[in-house]
Amino acid sequence: MPKKILRVNMNNLEAKFEDLPGDYAALGGRGMTSTIVAKEVPPTCNPLGIHNKLVFAPGIVTGTAAPSSGRLSVGGKSPLTGGIKEANAGTPFSQMLARMRIGAIIIEGKHEGHDYYLLKVTMDGGEFINANKWSGKGLYGVYKDLRKEFGEKAGICGVGIAAELLGGNSGVCFADPEGLPSRYAGRGGLGAVMASKGLKFIIVDEAGAPGVEIANQEVFKEGIKKLRDALTSHDVTKPGGALNSYGTAVLVNIINEAGGLPQRNFSSGQDERAEKVSGEAKAEEIKKRGGTRPHFCNPGCIIQCSEVWVKPNGKDPVGVLEYESVWALGPNSGIYNLDDIGELIRACNDLGCDTIEAGGTLGVAMEGGLVKFGDGKGALKLMEEIRNKTPTGRILAQGTEITGKVLGITRIPTVKGQSLPAYDPRAIKGIGVTYATTPMGADHTAGYAIAPEILGVGGTLDPLDPKKAEVSRNLQLATAAVDASGYCLFIAFAILDIPEGLQGVVESLNGVLGANLTVADVAPIGKSIIDTELEFNKKAGFTSLDDRLPEFFLEEKLPPHNTVFDVTDADLDSVF
Amino acid sequence: MPKKILRVNMNNLEAKFEDLPGDYAALGGRGMTSTIVAKEVPPTCNPLGIHNKLVFAPGIVTGTAAPSSGRLSVGGKSPLTGGIKEANAGTPFSQMLARMRIGAIIIEGKHEGHDYYLLKVTMDGGEFINANKWSGKGLYGVYKDLRKEFGEKAGICGVGIAAELLGGNSGVCFADPEGLPSRYAGRGGLGAVMASKGLKFIIVDEAGAPGVEIANQEVFKEGIKKLRDALTSHDVTKPGGALNSYGTAVLVNIINEAGGLPQRNFSSGQDERAEKVSGEAKAEEIKKRGGTRPHFCNPGCIIQCSEVWVKPNGKDPVGVLEYESVWALGPNSGIYNLDDIGELIRACNDLGCDTIEAGGTLGVAMEGGLVKFGDGKGALKLMEEIRNKTPTGRILAQGTEITGKVLGITRIPTVKGQSLPAYDPRAIKGIGVTYATTPMGADHTAGYAIAPEILGVGGTLDPLDPKKAEVSRNLQLATAAVDASGYCLFIAFAILDIPEGLQGVVESLNGVLGANLTVADVAPIGKSIIDTELEFNKKAGFTSLDDRLPEFFLEEKLPPHNTVFDVTDADLDSVF
Repeated sequence: MPKKILRVNMNNLEAKFEDLPGDYAALGGRGMTSTIVAKEVPPTCNPLGIHNKLVFAPGIVTGTAAPSSGRLSVGGKSPLTGGIKEANAGTPFSQMLARMRIGAIIIEGKHEGHDYYLLKVTMDGGEFINANKWSGKGLYGVYKDLRKEFGEKAGICGVGIAAELLGGNSGVCFADPEGLPSRYAGRGGLGAVMASKGLKFIIVDEAGAPGVEIANQEVFKEGIKKLRDALTSHDVTKPGGALNSYGTAVLVNIINEAGGLPQRNFSSGQDERAEKVSGEAKAEEIKKRGGTRPHFCNPGCIIQCSEVWVKPNGKDPVGVLEYESVWALGPNSGIYNLDDIGELIRACNDLGCDTIEAGGTLGVAMEGGLVKFGDGKGALKLMEEIRNKTPTGRILAQGTEITGKVLGITRIPTVKGQSLPAYDPRAIKGIGVTYATTPMGADHTAGYAIAPEILGVGGTLDPLDPKKAEVSRNLQLATAAVDASGYCLFIAFAILDIPEGLQGVVESLNGVLGANLTVADVAPIGKSIIDTELEFNKKAGFTSLDDRLPEFFLEEKLPPHNTVFDVTDADLDSVF
Repeated sequence: MPKKILRVNMNNLEAKFEDLPGDYAALGGRGMTSTIVAKEVPPTCNPLGIHNKLVFAPGIVTGTAAPSSGRLSVGGKSPLTGGIKEANAGTPFSQMLARMRIGAIIIEGKHEGHDYYLLKVTMDGGEFINANKWSGKGLYGVYKDLRKEFGEKAGICGVGIAAELLGGNSGVCFADPEGLPSRYAGRGGLGAVMASKGLKFIIVDEAGAPGVEIANQEVFKEGIKKLRDALTSHDVTKPGGALNSYGTAVLVNIINEAGGLPQRNFSSGQDERAEKVSGEAKAEEIKKRGGTRPHFCNPGCIIQCSEVWVKPNGKDPVGVLEYESVWALGPNSGIYNLDDIGELIRACNDLGCDTIEAGGTLGVAMEGGLVKFGDGKGALKLMEEIRNKTPTGRILAQGTEITGKVLGITRIPTVKGQSLPAYDPRAIKGIGVTYATTPMGADHTAGYAIAPEILGVGGTLDPLDPKKAEVSRNLQLATAAVDASGYCLFIAFAILDIPEGLQGVVESLNGVLGANLTVADVAPIGKSIIDTELEFNKKAGFTSLDDRLPEFFLEEKLPPHNTVFDVTDADLDSVF
């Protein structure tokens, strides 16, 4: 049985399988979504209008026994950046689609009127169910309902109240293995694209799925063994290693020490209180109060960086508190209390908000005086404004840039309209190059220069040295290839340092595809994806002037290093 | 005494005269502001940051006996469009600056902290006075205070509460001859630029002014006589003519009949109720209740299209109800009641809002459900949200595009972020070409194709014919030259049809400048101004894709003609 595309027309509520075109056969994840978006979406279209499309695609090895490979890419034209967008998440939903041999789901058109729908996908096709009863409701409760209605094994994807507001901060939310709405393809407002079409949920029931076709089992098995060996031996990814023990929030202390952890809307890179919200403190607390640590976001993950955070009484699971979320809703908002942060993350998950965008938004909202820096309870009340769809909530749901403008703030930390992640580019220059130049808008995952600049992974670079164009470019190319593979980006920690691991990744791809790729092909694969994305953005009106950081990063010195972002425009323009 | 520049540094509250550079000697109005902005403002700077500048410049013949020549240009980088901006107003303030031989006032820097200042300009220089007591207050009351404090002869310029909110809809407000805050350089959010620097008001006291230097009195007098003859004989501009009898709102019936008067956020081009808010109905009503009609916005105007509208009891003067304002706050908001419209215009004047942007904003706010179309009292309440600086008020103060986005509207009538004026481009194609291609963002005054398309002035063209690139370009070039001269754009009605009038305009410029310009020089003068502006916008990141109308104008048919905007992209790109 060959791979299919499920094409979903929201104009007339029709969902039909069609053959995957031959030239899409070797595509997966970001490679698939960006190719389809570039081919089918007019670059100048209104991202919330009838011409935009939303594309879901599992990675190439997703759904197989390859470790840490349960990623799903979501693509479309972003209402936040105005450019092409790929956001991805680790979720069983992705593995199910892959096993059903669905190479992509394409959501197109726009349902007239105000009804919301749920699309149920089975081996037989797609079926629509009215979903109005779940609109305006928090996703924790709704996902419980959906599991009751469609079974605990169903894959769940949905969008929340922020998306109903067509908010630029709205993500596409996948259930984790326990059914918690905590796994987000968060960035770029793709949740709003889904809601704009009248689609609230996608449920997948994989009964009868044939599984992923593997062209060469032997090569595949050899490959994943090499990768497994690399993952289980590298200090960052191995069981009992940094990610497994503390989760991504292990970075809080590291980046704070490096002077690059943005505090209070990017006004300082360090604060001694950050330790209170570190990965170490969090792991300790989970041990004390209950919850789960470590934990996986999808079955078959070796790294298992995830966790389930709970209230002090051990109840009301939130899901994972990632580093980016902890930072955005913590130090960037002047909040240094894990319980406040946990509740803010719960609110984001419940409302369908990207935590990075929400935290960036709180930062400018606090600078604009809506509540004080550090006021966790006040911040939670602001999130409730989104739930209540008040004017304030509507502002906040639009994300950092619009909130900053509406409040008359000039220090707005965004690139291409998207909020900056948890590394200040004045203290760690290479990540700033990535923020500025990736076609995605400010995105750390697009080319994680933190690895060599801070973690000593894949080399060792001085974070304050502004000559970072090359390292950012190389990482961006490699990342695009990883985002196509279906592997979690975190395998990069191991394969950047262990050549056999990288070899194994390539072999696993060859095994699935029946191809003869070599390690030398990885960067060109990534480049072809990024070229497609850059071409789309150019046609959408982007110029090199969009590849810049906001003025204040160039002029306002960041303590404690007291440096500005001094990468030259020429260097930025040399990246692509 | 040669012409000067008054350079005002808000960082340290210093205002100093400096010599006007030799190559600026022949510049005025838009020619002066765009030249200075292009030379001194970094195109990529934050428009509300320290690097933007605000430039005021009277026209070349302003302050002389030339008829209808009291225009003042205000320029800077627009926070609404992100590009270069020139907005102009007719006001005695301009004539005073000209007579003081102040070629330009340049406001630069940014005062730290939260204080607002008043700058008093005399022949001796500039003096700063703390203006905090007038912040947060409506301009009708404040301008009364200012006239008490600085005398009835003082020229008054200021910004209102919308500018304090750094709103993209905030204009720069000049007092009319009676001291009413009704003469706006309204468009593009330049009020916010002024407020962002800590400057609330500029008062001019022209005591001791030497008057405008006229190089060749004889040529000058001959020129203005020819222009005067043209103005007093053309049906549109003569005493008792269309503008003099009914004001600009004479267009309501004409454009409604042509099917191009946008109703309820651009959903129809015609409504029989429009007649109730026509110029004819308004003139009749003024005759009945009191008020003044005709009236001039600056001494020496022959056309005298202005008026003073009052409440039904003949009291509480508003100032003029211009066609654009009547449309924006009337039919575009589904309101067909002159008293409601008058009070909405009063609110805009009082708060410091551009009426076109405010009306466009009400249109999307009504489509977004904040109040119902046609609810004049509800619309007034919304304007009060701006006064009270509530979250809703802050949204509205940002103008049509941000309000539309925040409310999740996809039908947002803007170009380059600026709200469309009172002519639907689907029914009158040439004005759409101007909206799309002028460096100013949607602006009818930039190239008023309505003249030949609807009014039969300067030729007769079919409004539905999409081949309008050439007429728009020619009008845009001529307009830029007029905007530099200091003449009111309305002289164009006469000089497009009466060659001697145009000849007179050129002679009047030659008289003042001691130059030897011919009619053939007019277009090249305009072109050089527009080239400067286009170059700035290009450096600010604009591409040809910014020269487009929003999607819905291309796809949604406008009753009653049931046509879309079908000017090709190639035609749009051929304009410049």
